[in-house]
Amino acid sequence: MSGIWQNNIGLSIFGESHGRGIGITITGLVSGLEMDFDFIQSELNRRRPGQNDLTTPRKEDDTFEILSGVFNNRTTGAPLTAFIRNTNTRSRDYSDIEKCPRPGHADYPSYIKYKGFSDYRGGGHFSGRLTAGIVFAGAVAKLFLRKKNIAIRSCITQISNVKAPYKELMDEKEFEGLLDMKLPSFGDSKLMEKAIIEAKEAKDSVGGKIRCLAFGVKAGIGDPYFNSVESIVSHLMFSVPAIKGINFGHEAIEEKMGSEANDAYYHEGVIKTRTNHNGGILGGITNGMPIDFTVSVKATPSIGQPQETINYNSLEKEMLTIGGRHDPCIVPRVLPVIESILALTLLDLGA
Amino acid sequence: MSGIWQNNIGLSIFGESHGRGIGITITGLVSGLEMDFDFIQSELNRRRPGQNDLTTPRKEDDTFEILSGVFNNRTTGAPLTAFIRNTNTRSRDYSDIEKCPRPGHADYPSYIKYKGFSDYRGGGHFSGRLTAGIVFAGAVAKLFLRKKNIAIRSCITQISNVKAPYKELMDEKEFEGLLDMKLPSFGDSKLMEKAIIEAKEAKDSVGGKIRCLAFGVKAGIGDPYFNSVESIVSHLMFSVPAIKGINFGHEAIEEKMGSEANDAYYHEGVIKTRTNHNGGILGGITNGMPIDFTVSVKATPSIGQPQETINYNSLEKEMLTIGGRHDPCIVPRVLPVIESILALTLLDLGA
Amino acid sequence: MSGIWQNNIGLSIFGESHGRGIGITITGLVSGLEMDFDFIQSELNRRRPGQNDLTTPRKEDDTFEILSGVFNNRTTGAPLTAFIRNTNTRSRDYSDIEKCPRPGHADYPSYIKYKGFSDYRGGGHFSGRLTAGIVFAGAVAKLFLRKKNIAIRSCITQISNVKAPYKELMDEKEFEGLLDMKLPSFGDSKLMEKAIIEAKEAKDSVGGKIRCLAFGVKAGIGDPYFNSVESIVSHLMFSVPAIKGINFGHEAIEEKMGSEANDAYYHEGVIKTRTNHNGGILGGITNGMPIDFTVSVKATPSIGQPQETINYNSLEKEMLTIGGRHDPCIVPRVLPVIESILALTLLDLGA
Amino acid sequence: MSGIWQNNIGLSIFGESHGRGIGITITGLVSGLEMDFDFIQSELNRRRPGQNDLTTPRKEDDTFEILSGVFNNRTTGAPLTAFIRNTNTRSRDYSDIEKCPRPGHADYPSYIKYKGFSDYRGGGHFSGRLTAGIVFAGAVAKLFLRKKNIAIRSCITQISNVKAPYKELMDEKEFEGLLDMKLPSFGDSKLMEKAIIEAKEAKDSVGGKIRCLAFGVKAGIGDPYFNSVESIVSHLMFSVPAIKGINFGHEAIEEKMGSEANDAYYHEGVIKTRTNHNGGILGGITNGMPIDFTVSVKATPSIGQPQETINYNSLEKEMLTIGGRHDPCIVPRVLPVIESILALTLLDLGA
Repeated sequence: MSGIWQNNIGLSIFGESHGRGIGITITGLVSGLEMDFDFIQSELNRRRPGQNDLTTPRKEDDTFEILSGVFNNRTTGAPLTAFIRNTNTRSRDYSDIEKCPRPGHADYPSYIKYKGFSDYRGGGHFSGRLTAGIVFAGAVAKLFLRKKNIAIRSCITQISNVKAPYKELMDEKEFEGLLDMKLPSFGDSKLMEKAIIEAKEAKDSVGGKIRCLAFGVKAGIGDPYFNSVESIVSHLMFSVPAIKGINFGHEAIEEKMGSEANDAYYHEGVIKTRTNHNGGILGGITNGMPIDFTVSVKATPSIGQPQETINYNSLEKEMLTIGGRHDPCIVPRVLPVIESILALTLLDLGA
Repeated sequence: MSGIWQNNIGLSIFGESHGRGIGITITGLVSGLEMDFDFIQSELNRRRPGQNDLTTPRKEDDTFEILSGVFNNRTTGAPLTAFIRNTNTRSRDYSDIEKCPRPGHADYPSYIKYKGFSDYRGGGHFSGRLTAGIVFAGAVAKLFLRKKNIAIRSCITQISNVKAPYKELMDEKEFEGLLDMKLPSFGDSKLMEKAIIEAKEAKDSVGGKIRCLAFGVKAGIGDPYFNSVESIVSHLMFSVPAIKGINFGHEAIEEKMGSEANDAYYHEGVIKTRTNHNGGILGGITNGMPIDFTVSVKATPSIGQPQETINYNSLEKEMLTIGGRHDPCIVPRVLPVIESILALTLLDLGA
Repeated sequence: MSGIWQNNIGLSIFGESHGRGIGITITGLVSGLEMDFDFIQSELNRRRPGQNDLTTPRKEDDTFEILSGVFNNRTTGAPLTAFIRNTNTRSRDYSDIEKCPRPGHADYPSYIKYKGFSDYRGGGHFSGRLTAGIVFAGAVAKLFLRKKNIAIRSCITQISNVKAPYKELMDEKEFEGLLDMKLPSFGDSKLMEKAIIEAKEAKDSVGGKIRCLAFGVKAGIGDPYFNSVESIVSHLMFSVPAIKGINFGHEAIEEKMGSEANDAYYHEGVIKTRTNHNGGILGGITNGMPIDFTVSVKATPSIGQPQETINYNSLEKEMLTIGGRHDPCIVPRVLPVIESILALTLLDLGA
Repeated sequence: MSGIWQNNIGLSIFGESHGRGIGITITGLVSGLEMDFDFIQSELNRRRPGQNDLTTPRKEDDTFEILSGVFNNRTTGAPLTAFIRNTNTRSRDYSDIEKCPRPGHADYPSYIKYKGFSDYRGGGHFSGRLTAGIVFAGAVAKLFLRKKNIAIRSCITQISNVKAPYKELMDEKEFEGLLDMKLPSFGDSKLMEKAIIEAKEAKDSVGGKIRCLAFGVKAGIGDPYFNSVESIVSHLMFSVPAIKGINFGHEAIEEKMGSEANDAYYHEGVIKTRTNHNGGILGGITNGMPIDFTVSVKATPSIGQPQETINYNSLEKEMLTIGGRHDPCIVPRVLPVIESILALTLLDLGA
């Protein structure tokens, strides 16, 4: 069923790109947590388009209204709902995509599933705009995790075919040390930016990879069946548009011999492992090392080039040119979404 | 919470490697489906160790007993429970792993989570033996899918660092055409086998990749939030021990430009796409093309070499040599497990 | 966990009595159903206070805004969210109930559960005002059921100690025939009204019973474990404030001998039963006869008389007099809420 | 969906009356709890038929086997499965009920729902025999609650039309004081027994009411939406065959004026209420007073008298006489089942 996810916390997401707005309800929150609305807004701003010349010039106003669940600036323990009203929806003609599905988008499968009744304008419920709700929820989760000294960080490791070399990261300091703040990335930001700009000039788009880590998570979180840490992270992750893959631990752990893939134990204050090829998770349960995974983001399907498609009515071939302001690369904007998924997972699993 | 997964169908898994046995309950099945116990047993046999010289010589007797839910050889619609009794558990001494966690195994995180009360013998509830239950359930799911002319196939695409070249597959016939039946694999079986035998001789182990496809799935199955096809597949997949990654569609879709990653539509009887880079899923919903994904399997952590670990009591370093009969490569035995996860997902989502 | 219920459809409820407003998200709806907003508003009006001299003179403006899930006046299949903004919340002093729990209200247990952080103003999240969301969702469910010729009706059978005689009802016509439209009730409306007015004059309140039926539900809906029709109805029902009991079938079925309680089968076009003592449900599954149950509604705890309570800080006794406009009897306003619970259950179970 | 219930703990029930046996899996249990198998067996014995002349002379051997989840006599935290093998199933002819539904039983609705494929022998999956699994799970839950000094007690308050007078009970001692141990009941056991014996002689059956209480539950357990204590108790309760009603708190709370129904607060060591008309629950959350509810149990539908039914094939009237050994009154045997539902609810909600 659509729209709700529930384990220890619950998420109920709703809204459309060109309807009244988008929103999210978070349930199961502990009462008494002080809200930090500036932080939440700053997280939303990281996702927002129009921040620099690498993303779409389209401006969205991601100002949220808290509809419930906060009183005297603290969580009450009742469902917390936030709503972001749509304001900047250009009243344009969507009759082309009503009749012809955009390649790489959800238009065609949703047309079949919802029998032609879905709100197709701007992708409707399938729009990337709904991830603003996920970022809102993730920011709330981060406020909870902050109290437990859990830090969540992410970085771009690939844009198009520009790949950063893989580095094992054992703590947040090492993460900081490797970071090229520009994009931010672990690789050569300049080369990555070049790939984005070339795509933009070609009216095309590029994808990439994002690596995400959580530092400070204690051992013993998660379950073998069926709520492994990987299960919850990936379940929520594949609700994020454009995510096509997720890999935990070392980027090529499947190539390693068992003797290499196994992380040896030692004791130094607490029990640790000398390497972290397993990404902080064994048997679905955290082992106290950094949680570490990488996701693949496909190039955004909205491009300015004409593309082959069919017309639902005539079943004839049509060449579709999607108008409007396109994002040559959504990867930088996806960073806070990925972090949010991990934050929500950790909050859910009681980290 | 542990042990139960529930969406439209339900799974409840239980058991331990060296306890009474392992079992699974499947709920939400339609009544009246004729059972094919020979088929189910043949699926279990694919997973069973001791089939050839590439796997462990250990023999497990995976003979199941149906405890409920079948009457007159058909599903009744009530919960269907199967139990596989443990018979071949050598009464050996497990005191070493009671005190010292095996690197790469769930021993340490489960020790923390369950406060030392878990059944550690042979990995207990974390043992790969529980996947026999998943294969049983998957075989039942395949019986249902067979009625809808849905076929599920899988193949090895990588062993250690021996990689098969990527091929786009548009139908089951193309799958058959590429298949090297020996392992079975899409690559050079001989090279792959060589890598396994070398690992065995070095008392080490190797991992690899498995590609899995479903042919014949209609368009319109799945949901955007939070039950995308990818979400359900990956949620269940990461309950399978040793799986560390999953990637949908083209193995390097994140490297492609949008103009390449987008699959163009055309009409030929039904609406199809000219390529299937998105692996049959857009916006979380099937588009009628083959479902296509690849999983990464890490090398089994049980190896015969001595490994560094610590003793829970003394917190001193110990060198642990795991005795017994090891599997140098579990990848061939994992094939029916991966197929089962996909079959259960498709049954669940109403394919 | 709080706020979400999920089976085949999903409900996510949120809001507070004196916050921004109250709302509900419904998920899992089929696409394409035409909305009838006049009908939905008329259902909300049935629940609204201030309709006649038997209820509180307080006026609430239950005007809803659809935030998502409707396009071109039809359901899209995406989550449908409605929000009712609070407008008529008098800015009064709630410091008394912040410190002293009102007897019979949720104040004290919620104070403990939420550690003093809940929004206590007007009952906050525990306010009966949230049932407006349930009535909205129920009205949507009724639109779906209407297409299947399922009618849901309810009636008052007891106010205070004024009881209507029990009558077995085999179809909607019989229901209509017995109805005294005034309240509406199955008994002597005048006596019932008298009991309400006397309570009002005594600054007290009265409860009663409501009987609710569904006509036109086919046989075969529901499950033995754990989703019996009674399980789903009662699960949702006990989310409605003031409901303390639910009884299915004949009001005194437990007094009857087996030979009487059993409903004999006969055939007349379809298989029917000669009596309906079991309220249309056997083994948790519908049998094609009218679904029939009665709920007990306790007197609203908000009364104008002084009541003994304690002060959280001093732990000393205090006499609390709750100011404001009270409802001497909420039973008539609860009718559409009870109907909504049944409508949502039937929609959920696929009636 | 059938067979699974899941909130913080999970239950997966399976089995049939005349199949291999019946079983249950409990998930989400904390590790390390010492098992007390004698206690568990004694609880099962309370439910077992053939204990005295008031119940059926049929003997069932309710000896359970633990299939998983216990190691060194303690819970491991992994799913705990118990199985009770059927041994005493007389191989008789069930062709009559295969063709003709027994009035008052689930035969007809399950025939429709499962399209004639359900196991009808002895009621199959609908048999009261499955409640042995619930009692097993409830006994395990009681072992957990014992550690928190929570005691669960129940008593018969009505058999047929013999009713015990209502008494408010503020602690376990008062409960003990009122108890007539014979049945056990709160009323005149002799009159109740007489009603049972008369029914037996008339080849008929009788129902009644059971009151169940939990002493020692702290305040703050439960949720307003949608997991109120009443919601969870009633959801699970209506999975128990023959239960037709549940009422929380005072048996006639709906008749009381608000001024009476409200329980005044006072302080005596902790905050308490002077009465407990609300049965220990306000707004869905416990208030620290005894949880107190009453369920209605209909007379068992299996009686020795001929009853009118129809033949599925001919659609003609048939008079059905159910052979075998009948229970004139199952109410005494239901006591441990009701207690188990409450125990499981409290364990689930974290009492």
